[in-house]
Amino acid sequence: MKVSDIGECQLIDRLNILLHQKPDENTPARENLILDIGDDAAVFLPQGYQLVTVDSLIENVHFNRSMLNWADLGYKALAINMSDIAAMGGLPQYAVVNIDLPPDTLVSSVTDCYNAMYSLANKYQTVIIAGDTNQSSIINLAITLLGSAENPSCLLTRNAAQAGQKIAVTGYLGNAAAGLDMLLNQTEVTDESRRIFYRSFYRPKPRINEARLLVKEGVHCCIDISDGLVTDLGHILRQSRVSARIELDKLPLHPSLRLSYPLQAQNMALYGGEDYELLFTASAKVIEQISVQSHIPVTIIGEIIPGKPEELKLVDKDGRALQPEKNGWEHFKKPK
Amino acid sequence: MKVSDIGECQLIDRLNILLHQKPDENTPARENLILDIGDDAAVFLPQGYQLVTVDSLIENVHFNRSMLNWADLGYKALAINMSDIAAMGGLPQYAVVNIDLPPDTLVSSVTDCYNAMYSLANKYQTVIIAGDTNQSSIINLAITLLGSAENPSCLLTRNAAQAGQKIAVTGYLGNAAAGLDMLLNQTEVTDESRRIFYRSFYRPKPRINEARLLVKEGVHCCIDISDGLVTDLGHILRQSRVSARIELDKLPLHPSLRLSYPLQAQNMALYGGEDYELLFTASAKVIEQISVQSHIPVTIIGEIIPGKPEELKLVDKDGRALQPEKNGWEHFKKPK
Repeated sequence: MKVSDIGECQLIDRLNILLHQKPDENTPARENLILDIGDDAAVFLPQGYQLVTVDSLIENVHFNRSMLNWADLGYKALAINMSDIAAMGGLPQYAVVNIDLPPDTLVSSVTDCYNAMYSLANKYQTVIIAGDTNQSSIINLAITLLGSAENPSCLLTRNAAQAGQKIAVTGYLGNAAAGLDMLLNQTEVTDESRRIFYRSFYRPKPRINEARLLVKEGVHCCIDISDGLVTDLGHILRQSRVSARIELDKLPLHPSLRLSYPLQAQNMALYGGEDYELLFTASAKVIEQISVQSHIPVTIIGEIIPGKPEELKLVDKDGRALQPEKNGWEHFKKPK
Repeated sequence: MKVSDIGECQLIDRLNILLHQKPDENTPARENLILDIGDDAAVFLPQGYQLVTVDSLIENVHFNRSMLNWADLGYKALAINMSDIAAMGGLPQYAVVNIDLPPDTLVSSVTDCYNAMYSLANKYQTVIIAGDTNQSSIINLAITLLGSAENPSCLLTRNAAQAGQKIAVTGYLGNAAAGLDMLLNQTEVTDESRRIFYRSFYRPKPRINEARLLVKEGVHCCIDISDGLVTDLGHILRQSRVSARIELDKLPLHPSLRLSYPLQAQNMALYGGEDYELLFTASAKVIEQISVQSHIPVTIIGEIIPGKPEELKLVDKDGRALQPEKNGWEHFKKPK
């Protein structure tokens, strides 16, 4: 059955039922919700400071219809927004889902997508409270996510890096780029590697718990790696007006990545993007404290140094400098 | 100059400058803004209860590129969201703008669009605090708008209509449909009519001040007319579980509409949509009090009656019943 067989009103009715399954527990976000889907706007009683971010996944830009798994689409669209809220030190609370669909989309595809979103939302005590469904020639899933932070001093921002601090990342870098490469080029890798890379690309874990750990330990500067380490570190350097040095042999490359992509692994970690890991700066001592409490690797990859603002030095294990390429993802620019 | 000539980062820099022009005055929304565009999320200190809505304008669905005026696009995308916040009895505060653009879009088109948004936002003390710019094959402008309401008892909802209440609308109905007809069919009308219809279609006024008047006078049930009077009244009837009677000769038809579309005017008012006027229910006395304070017409067009829930009676001046058509706008459905 296609969405054109039932129309917008019936589609919304079905999604509404899906989104009102009994949740695992009654969370603060649910308790403070006054009015959700069904009126001109949703209404809630806000708690603390409010965070708001938006990110979308668009057909033929972020994915192709031929290789689309709708559950992955729904999961990832919400996860990348949760990653932004995490990178600010906040907790996600309310999601607003704007979905555009070609009329011949299967209803079951849309419900697969919403089930995955609902499940991820539920896991992080987030409620989907509003949205819009539109007809379009291409699939487009845009989510606006609202989150909360106790107070402004808890925020993790891009402008708080200071010379002398170490630079650290959570998890591994480059696995999502490997997942994309496998999709585009049918590169052959082991089954185990395939599983790891696909999971990184399709199902990035929002680092919400890790970000809370950063806040608890007094970190102030953080960004999530969506466009690639070099590009996203560049945002920190520009906004903090500092310089940095990255030691290439410290980059956390997963053994599977080293094995499957021995020549490209380093560049995938530097420029690949979509890893949605946290990149942050703090003292070595603070990073050590975070590392021992974290369930995933936390790795020091370099340091913030005095020097020309925005300058980034990439140094290999023999101390040789490598010129950073400018090839992180940027919309509208033709790929180099 | 095209957006592909400068890329996403430079485009965002330009939009950022545009959005940080000195506003007319320092408003509560600005005073409570902690962090806007430039980090992973925007941050503000919320006031009262929070309202949130999303609506988008999509190429080949809501408009065609050949007849696109970018300033009108920006204006309308924000205005229709403001209309939703108004229809809840709230005040708009913060806008999140998600824009998708083909790479060959002129930079000046994008700045025209943002200038119109900025200007309308400013007029209603609203701040554009976050957003996302994406490459796409089609133009898509989705805005999530956050607003505030003092307390839940001030909310205007769809489920609060009661038998015995009168049904009223602000302004005129059908003018936007006439504007769309002129565009699609090059219908010839007088210059004065053309100006009125185009203005209704391209530049609908969000009825924020009128909605505040409704709240002040104790109205509880309201919706904005986006999909057509019959469709939107249908939402009220369904959610309030009541029935209604509309007197067709009471429909507020602008003299220009009667003159230009003598045969279609009534249907344009009933089914046309996009008028973004307020449709509400209250006692005749309350409506009279609102009418005398309002700068635009407020017209009683019928009443909420006991009877089969959701039933809508359309009655002409001789008391004859007209069967309502089911042809309000609905996404995914093929037009009849």
